[in-house]
Amino acid sequence: MRIIEPTLLLDEKKCQENINFMVQKAKRSNVIFRPHFKTHQSIEVGRWFRAQGVDKITVSSLRMAKYFADDGWEDITVAFPVNILEIDRINDLSRKIKLNLLVESSEVVRYLDNFLKGHVGVFIKIDTGYHRTGLGLEEVHIVDEIIELIDKSEKLTFEGFLTHAGHTYRARGKGEVVQIYVESLEVLNHFKERYMSRFPQIIISYGDTPSCSLLDSFEGVDEIRPGNFVFYDVMQWVIGSCDLGRIAVSLACPVVAKHPSRREIVVYGGAVHLSKEKIKLSDGTEIYGLLVYLADSGWILPEQLCPVVSVSQEHGVIRVDENTFAEISVGDVVGVLPVHSCLTANLMKFYITLDGKVLEQMCERSRNI
Amino acid sequence: MRIIEPTLLLDEKKCQENINFMVQKAKRSNVIFRPHFKTHQSIEVGRWFRAQGVDKITVSSLRMAKYFADDGWEDITVAFPVNILEIDRINDLSRKIKLNLLVESSEVVRYLDNFLKGHVGVFIKIDTGYHRTGLGLEEVHIVDEIIELIDKSEKLTFEGFLTHAGHTYRARGKGEVVQIYVESLEVLNHFKERYMSRFPQIIISYGDTPSCSLLDSFEGVDEIRPGNFVFYDVMQWVIGSCDLGRIAVSLACPVVAKHPSRREIVVYGGAVHLSKEKIKLSDGTEIYGLLVYLADSGWILPEQLCPVVSVSQEHGVIRVDENTFAEISVGDVVGVLPVHSCLTANLMKFYITLDGKVLEQMCERSRNI
Repeated sequence: MRIIEPTLLLDEKKCQENINFMVQKAKRSNVIFRPHFKTHQSIEVGRWFRAQGVDKITVSSLRMAKYFADDGWEDITVAFPVNILEIDRINDLSRKIKLNLLVESSEVVRYLDNFLKGHVGVFIKIDTGYHRTGLGLEEVHIVDEIIELIDKSEKLTFEGFLTHAGHTYRARGKGEVVQIYVESLEVLNHFKERYMSRFPQIIISYGDTPSCSLLDSFEGVDEIRPGNFVFYDVMQWVIGSCDLGRIAVSLACPVVAKHPSRREIVVYGGAVHLSKEKIKLSDGTEIYGLLVYLADSGWILPEQLCPVVSVSQEHGVIRVDENTFAEISVGDVVGVLPVHSCLTANLMKFYITLDGKVLEQMCERSRNI
Repeated sequence: MRIIEPTLLLDEKKCQENINFMVQKAKRSNVIFRPHFKTHQSIEVGRWFRAQGVDKITVSSLRMAKYFADDGWEDITVAFPVNILEIDRINDLSRKIKLNLLVESSEVVRYLDNFLKGHVGVFIKIDTGYHRTGLGLEEVHIVDEIIELIDKSEKLTFEGFLTHAGHTYRARGKGEVVQIYVESLEVLNHFKERYMSRFPQIIISYGDTPSCSLLDSFEGVDEIRPGNFVFYDVMQWVIGSCDLGRIAVSLACPVVAKHPSRREIVVYGGAVHLSKEKIKLSDGTEIYGLLVYLADSGWILPEQLCPVVSVSQEHGVIRVDENTFAEISVGDVVGVLPVHSCLTANLMKFYITLDGKVLEQMCERSRNI
């Protein structure tokens, strides 16, 4: 395979191992495994999950639900607050698959009850401290109201409580992640206990890659929904969720310039390829990725970490040590481990595996509005 | 037009006015106007420039050069250090159009001289203080060497010195932008004077939207290459390059949740739509966009600025005042002025004008490698 421009490489072996790691962990922990597919957005990668026995998935949009439903996935949770403007898409999907939606207000539940043609499962989104969306402990009266409405509706089934404890992304190390888990479970269990005698089948659905990677057991949780672990990335490494060796994607970037005075190499690979996501290392450096050497068998970390220190639209600037600087020439292709693989994958739109297979991604933008 | 999901709206009138503003300014200043098309990446928007008399453009990749060459643009500068791995694309284009490339090392010039089949113009990239790419004053010996090589080559014409004074993006207000201009010109003129008697036709090409928006004259500069001004954005407003009223794009986003305790509204519109670009306001708040109300005639700013305070993959969280909170309901569609319109446009892939026209963008990702 000859690479001449930024290209997203996927190490299938690492990716399959990442999938297997989480499949096995969920099995051991006796929880439902409903991986989030927003990271890879690819039917081919989805099929690797299916081959390992996965049959329930999470997505972040109705478009994505349709994309995977068209490939045979029949049990999909859209882990994003219902966008009532997409009721036609909801109705289309609810006729074809077991569709679960996320609600956090009575008005949306009323809307669904009025305009749904089929049947959907409903999770109530709980905010356990991330404060992005969801209802907190102080809003139990709203939860009561929502549950009454769901209960009365013939089109809705109450599935349980779902949270995305996204504040684990600010955690560093297992201790902090466990702490968030303990606090989150306290909130979630409060809700579950309040309604369990009335709805004995309800479940607690917990997400995020840091928690699912670092926790030893999921006591108190019924379902897990990690997504990013399929590829991992530099951010997960900084959090402590993975080794750098587990990262399954790297952006191949042509080297276009070298600056000896700053020991920087400039690559063709910038914000429109990696994204502008950055992360602070423990020494305070903010980075956009880490250099790797590309080899036929995959990629290899240099002895010293070489960070991408800035990106503009098409440029990436990598600060390297003396040896690395000497080894890299203009016209070489180097790899960059992304800070946030979900955003990089979303920008790059397809993958090339190390043996040259092209893996499709969904086309999220269409003019069909 | 019925919007049900994140959609990039383009106010054609504002955009045409932005184009006209810069066309007229370049005319008055007697400089060549070679706008950067990486911001819009659209043949339709490109034609609006052509209709106003523009016939030279700048792009950031060879793919983009080809996309615009296919629409009849015949004089294109690729303002990105030559990626020698794309020599076939360079050869294809150089046969069809007047193609200018950017070099900053002897080895690349030698490579071009060896492998070029056609003829190209060459700018030497000068670093006037941004320190991303380019050669500085202390590297005049490299510039000498490059110019000797260009001069000996029958395939290369020396066009002059080009800089992107990207450190204007860290400037706030006209004073700081003028200061950077004065310092940059000192460097550029040093180079120009050194070689002008030998190459009397060489020019100085200066870029960036803050400079081109804020400078009253371009004394000492022969060509300007601003790009972002076609849309402007919140970042340009923070720098001082434009009023908020000049921003020509906004991302239409469905409202999916409201959180009274935090006075936050959650929209369907996140990092995969707006990008993760953020900017710090003078009060220290870091924001990802600004709320606008959508109307048939375009969009209207609320009385108080309402910032997008966080984005995740699909979510945006907007912090609003009491009145705005009361006025917005779940199921409404609001607009968000992006922090960096280039990245938002790149993610969204097409535009809808206020009268419902769909404007194409180039497809940057293709599997054809």
